[in-house]
Amino acid sequence: MDASINPSFQPKHRKIADADGLFHLLREGNKPALAQAITLIESNEVSKYEIGREIVKKAFPFSGKSKRIGITGVPGAGKSTFIESFGKTIADKGRKLAVLAIDPSSTIHKGSILGDKTRMQELSVHPNVFIRPTPSGTELGGVARHTYESMILCEAAGYDHIFVETVGVGQSETEVKHITDFFILLMIAGAGDELQGIKRGIMEMADLIVVNKADGSNLEKAKKASKEIENALMILGMNNARHKTKVQIYSSTEHTFQNDLIENTGLFFTESIASGTLESNRKEQLLYLFNRFLRNDIIDHLLLTKSLANDFKLLENKLLESKISPFEAIDSILKKIDFK
Amino acid sequence: MDASINPSFQPKHRKIADADGLFHLLREGNKPALAQAITLIESNEVSKYEIGREIVKKAFPFSGKSKRIGITGVPGAGKSTFIESFGKTIADKGRKLAVLAIDPSSTIHKGSILGDKTRMQELSVHPNVFIRPTPSGTELGGVARHTYESMILCEAAGYDHIFVETVGVGQSETEVKHITDFFILLMIAGAGDELQGIKRGIMEMADLIVVNKADGSNLEKAKKASKEIENALMILGMNNARHKTKVQIYSSTEHTFQNDLIENTGLFFTESIASGTLESNRKEQLLYLFNRFLRNDIIDHLLLTKSLANDFKLLENKLLESKISPFEAIDSILKKIDFK
Repeated sequence: MDASINPSFQPKHRKIADADGLFHLLREGNKPALAQAITLIESNEVSKYEIGREIVKKAFPFSGKSKRIGITGVPGAGKSTFIESFGKTIADKGRKLAVLAIDPSSTIHKGSILGDKTRMQELSVHPNVFIRPTPSGTELGGVARHTYESMILCEAAGYDHIFVETVGVGQSETEVKHITDFFILLMIAGAGDELQGIKRGIMEMADLIVVNKADGSNLEKAKKASKEIENALMILGMNNARHKTKVQIYSSTEHTFQNDLIENTGLFFTESIASGTLESNRKEQLLYLFNRFLRNDIIDHLLLTKSLANDFKLLENKLLESKISPFEAIDSILKKIDFK
Repeated sequence: MDASINPSFQPKHRKIADADGLFHLLREGNKPALAQAITLIESNEVSKYEIGREIVKKAFPFSGKSKRIGITGVPGAGKSTFIESFGKTIADKGRKLAVLAIDPSSTIHKGSILGDKTRMQELSVHPNVFIRPTPSGTELGGVARHTYESMILCEAAGYDHIFVETVGVGQSETEVKHITDFFILLMIAGAGDELQGIKRGIMEMADLIVVNKADGSNLEKAKKASKEIENALMILGMNNARHKTKVQIYSSTEHTFQNDLIENTGLFFTESIASGTLESNRKEQLLYLFNRFLRNDIIDHLLLTKSLANDFKLLENKLLESKISPFEAIDSILKKIDFK
């Protein structure tokens, strides 16, 4: 249950909205506590966010033990059914799976692409599964921030597989690459050359390309597409010693070629753990995230300082009245910052 | 001539690498001075960048008088020939055109997509035209920063039309939307439904969709595609009172349907200037850019403070040794910042 959806939820649980209490419940695998902790870090109210952040800090030492899997694909590639199919396999084996969906609500329409409640019906009621859509919210905050923090919380709550799902429109994939270990790109047969072109950047990032909907009369087409993609990767020089993208077919409705999927995923983790690349990749990610998050936090910190928040407002007004340039406005703020 | 290409260029002109001197040459429309000023703002050397920034500040009061036009399209849509064709029309009328190309060098390959020297051959030697590719460089710096600063410089140098070109891979389009007035999306006939799907986000941003390559045996297909796109925009509810996307066909090789292009572009500027939306849009952009640039500048400022730069390094090492979480590292930096 999501506190932001059910208005009666929040007051009822207000008594446990302290960091310690929530953290302990969360560590026991309590789903409502996990959901509430995530709601806190997504809150725009500073006092609530602070509690959420406190919980994330407590959770961090217990994090990092899951397989972090990014899943993307164009609209129509069948992401929901793929996640339902792959997720069920994992959960049925007794693993605990958290699905975090980044929803890059369209800039102009602000509508939620992933709001559809009918998605992943079976998975959403599975006892081993926790599903949570994360609105990407403000553009400046960075898409990955809340998702990364949610992931830390899920790991501390005992989830050993994390799916991070994005809509393949190209904006959030780079972000997801920075917080996951293994990146799956869903494609379908019959996509033209232009489509391959537009997704080059995303194809480069993929560890595994899955040609979905390989069923019925589509099976042969999917096999052919899979071969073509493999060839394209070779020709484009995307497969090299440093990075190897595997390609396979899959049917999310018939659950066929699941062994390939499990083998490809399993092999990646076995090999990258053994070689140490998983660890070194995560360390690189940590540095990136530190740098990235710090930028946002400094501004938040700045805006919480009353005198500076006033200056900031005044500068914005001057900008609107064309009295100064953004460069002078920046200099004016920088002059007010002292480092100890 | 680009200083970064010709190594003998920089030393020869070192004597004019002072902000005042360069600025005055630039104001007179001197192209090498403009190129050198842009090289300075793109420099990773603080001392050079500082000079570049000084020039941008001087240039700002003389900026804002151009038509800022963003141009994007999938690889294969014919962006270079379109820009050559449209650009020549503008330049031949005696207008001064600057073409700034954002090059989102691929994350893994680091190769330059736009490095091809044979692009826009006619346009590049036109006396009224200045062409400059901007490497997007570091991911953290923000794609738009250097391009925005380059645009300010070009405007101060008398350019009254600015094209900002991006490769339509979805990552830099949002950025370009924040620094331009009018956004043109190039498409071609024959792209499947999947392609329309992936570009929904970009289609939403477009003020004008141009179905390029409307020539020879492709003309009828292009006309049909244009109608289909118009219908799709209607169905998707993307055309409303607040935002109206026009659709037209064009041939960059035969230079046909140029009147439509000039009319569509001209009408947009006439109407948005008259209604005040151009100005209000630019003011919104200024606030966004101020906020965005400030984030980066604060970190730069921080890293230029020696004691803090040392702390930063130490924290990074602790992160790598898993001794702290990124959240604690951030808190540790924030504690050292004092606001006056």
